[in-house]
Amino acid sequence: MMRIAVDAMGGDHAPNQIVLGALQAAAAMRSEIILVGDPARIQEHMPPKPPKNITIHPASQVIEMEEKPLEALRKKKDSSLAVAIDLVKKGEAEAVFSAGNTGACTAGCLLSWRQIEGVERPAIASQMPSMHGGFLMLDAGASPDVDPKNLIEFAMMGRAYANRVMGRKNPKVHLMNIGEEPGKGNAFSKAAYELLKEYPWFAGNIEGKDVFLEPVDVVVMDAFVGNIVLKTCEGAAEFFMRIVKDRVPTNPLARLPYLPLKTLLTPLKKMSDYAEVGGSPLLGLNGICIIGHGRSNAKAAKNAVLLANRAVESRLLDSMRKELSMVVSSAK
Amino acid sequence: MMRIAVDAMGGDHAPNQIVLGALQAAAAMRSEIILVGDPARIQEHMPPKPPKNITIHPASQVIEMEEKPLEALRKKKDSSLAVAIDLVKKGEAEAVFSAGNTGACTAGCLLSWRQIEGVERPAIASQMPSMHGGFLMLDAGASPDVDPKNLIEFAMMGRAYANRVMGRKNPKVHLMNIGEEPGKGNAFSKAAYELLKEYPWFAGNIEGKDVFLEPVDVVVMDAFVGNIVLKTCEGAAEFFMRIVKDRVPTNPLARLPYLPLKTLLTPLKKMSDYAEVGGSPLLGLNGICIIGHGRSNAKAAKNAVLLANRAVESRLLDSMRKELSMVVSSAK
Repeated sequence: MMRIAVDAMGGDHAPNQIVLGALQAAAAMRSEIILVGDPARIQEHMPPKPPKNITIHPASQVIEMEEKPLEALRKKKDSSLAVAIDLVKKGEAEAVFSAGNTGACTAGCLLSWRQIEGVERPAIASQMPSMHGGFLMLDAGASPDVDPKNLIEFAMMGRAYANRVMGRKNPKVHLMNIGEEPGKGNAFSKAAYELLKEYPWFAGNIEGKDVFLEPVDVVVMDAFVGNIVLKTCEGAAEFFMRIVKDRVPTNPLARLPYLPLKTLLTPLKKMSDYAEVGGSPLLGLNGICIIGHGRSNAKAAKNAVLLANRAVESRLLDSMRKELSMVVSSAK
Repeated sequence: MMRIAVDAMGGDHAPNQIVLGALQAAAAMRSEIILVGDPARIQEHMPPKPPKNITIHPASQVIEMEEKPLEALRKKKDSSLAVAIDLVKKGEAEAVFSAGNTGACTAGCLLSWRQIEGVERPAIASQMPSMHGGFLMLDAGASPDVDPKNLIEFAMMGRAYANRVMGRKNPKVHLMNIGEEPGKGNAFSKAAYELLKEYPWFAGNIEGKDVFLEPVDVVVMDAFVGNIVLKTCEGAAEFFMRIVKDRVPTNPLARLPYLPLKTLLTPLKKMSDYAEVGGSPLLGLNGICIIGHGRSNAKAAKNAVLLANRAVESRLLDSMRKELSMVVSSAK
């Protein structure tokens, strides 16, 4: 039996929306969900007869969104986040989902679970839409200052995820760069290219434009670039959505001709809407963690729990350890 | 009389589309346009009675798109690009427009014109659309590996441009970063923040999402990040456009309900379409250069020439020199 620990108190709309999302996810999967937090407050949002695969695990404290990660983790050992992470460490759960303080979540998992052998820096992966069924990019925000060699780890972790969770066979890895040809880029990307080109799955440089238009599996970059790409896409998508909405008349009759727009704009909405995917996996540690956005609603929480479950059931960690063993053995 | 030197042979559709664009621009402005290139090939696309403010200046060679910039400039001293740049150096023109080899254009202008006092690295600026009438971002591609202190120069050049060419009063400058609060980011952005915060026009960090949604004048970053942001926006916009097009029926009658879409999607088209703006200014040198995209058509060429003219007529260079003198005097 697989078990997903859910930080029921983390996020702008916790525990209400998180509990509702977990209940929806419970109905759609076999694994057990452990809601971690204040039992009384969680109970308020539970139905009289909750599903059998959902339980409550008490935790008396809550780490707030604006708290400093390390300080909060040190002071609040009985916080819902720390307890959820600890359940995985003790082998009482296989994955964590939290929509709370991202920094505390990343630091907590890193300190408690430690890195998989061969990994120096963890990475947040983000699944992006594209003309060819989407791609995975990492690092989208975990480790801002990395060494070019860390991109090899990101590539291997991304390959394992793309294969196990996204169903891609023998995934290729591209390096995000300015210019396609070898030798293009800044000092960092040139050095990363030289290291990556030794691997058979490396497919070369790719530009920010082509990731959406060409068939791509995994794209690696440092977290500064990755996070800016992610936020830029969200911002551009929201900008387009707002402009379209502003131009559509409010009068119901005058609105009629614009009805077909609704389905046409779904991909835009998806990109500007966190709820669709629900969360981003934190990769490279001895445990699965799905990081949700602070403003996660029930739909986002449900999708995040289902994603955690998919990662656990597909044995993502085993696959990642196997993939990473290649860099380990070559380094020894 | 102001004069714009146009590299008539540079670009995928040169000289045809470049000459046509220059002719359209000539009709819309007083300044003189100097078409630089092979007189016979340019003449083919000229009307029997060309406008009085357009002349031809001969150049016997052409730098191709795939040539190595420095090598091409050294070998082809009589290329249309080198001759156009030289016209500005000799005081026979005030600005250059080229849709040819971007690397050769940037290097040629830098070597021939040299930097304005106070500038160490030139920058390419890019005007982006937004909910609040757009913003200017730089560096979008000229100098990939810079020092945090170079962002002060970019900020000052951007301020002068936003004021003179975009009409913004006392423009504010944001630093592109991951997280809004001071202290966020990677080592580079943290160092840049510490330097920028000494200036009264500095407005703090901004995230990739908010540049489109909040009122912003100028955003600075290194060229690696800037170019990736630019290309990502183009790619995302084109991706949305293609998806929408794929979903609209091809049958003319079934198409009817989708007609309102056309105007609604204009902003998307603008972002994916170089022709709208026409070109990006290369800033920081003793001369004005507008760099066009290789695939510039007549409309793009026309807009680029008009942009060059606006930069010259607004005395952008004087304004930039004045702005930069502040960093110079404080350093002495």
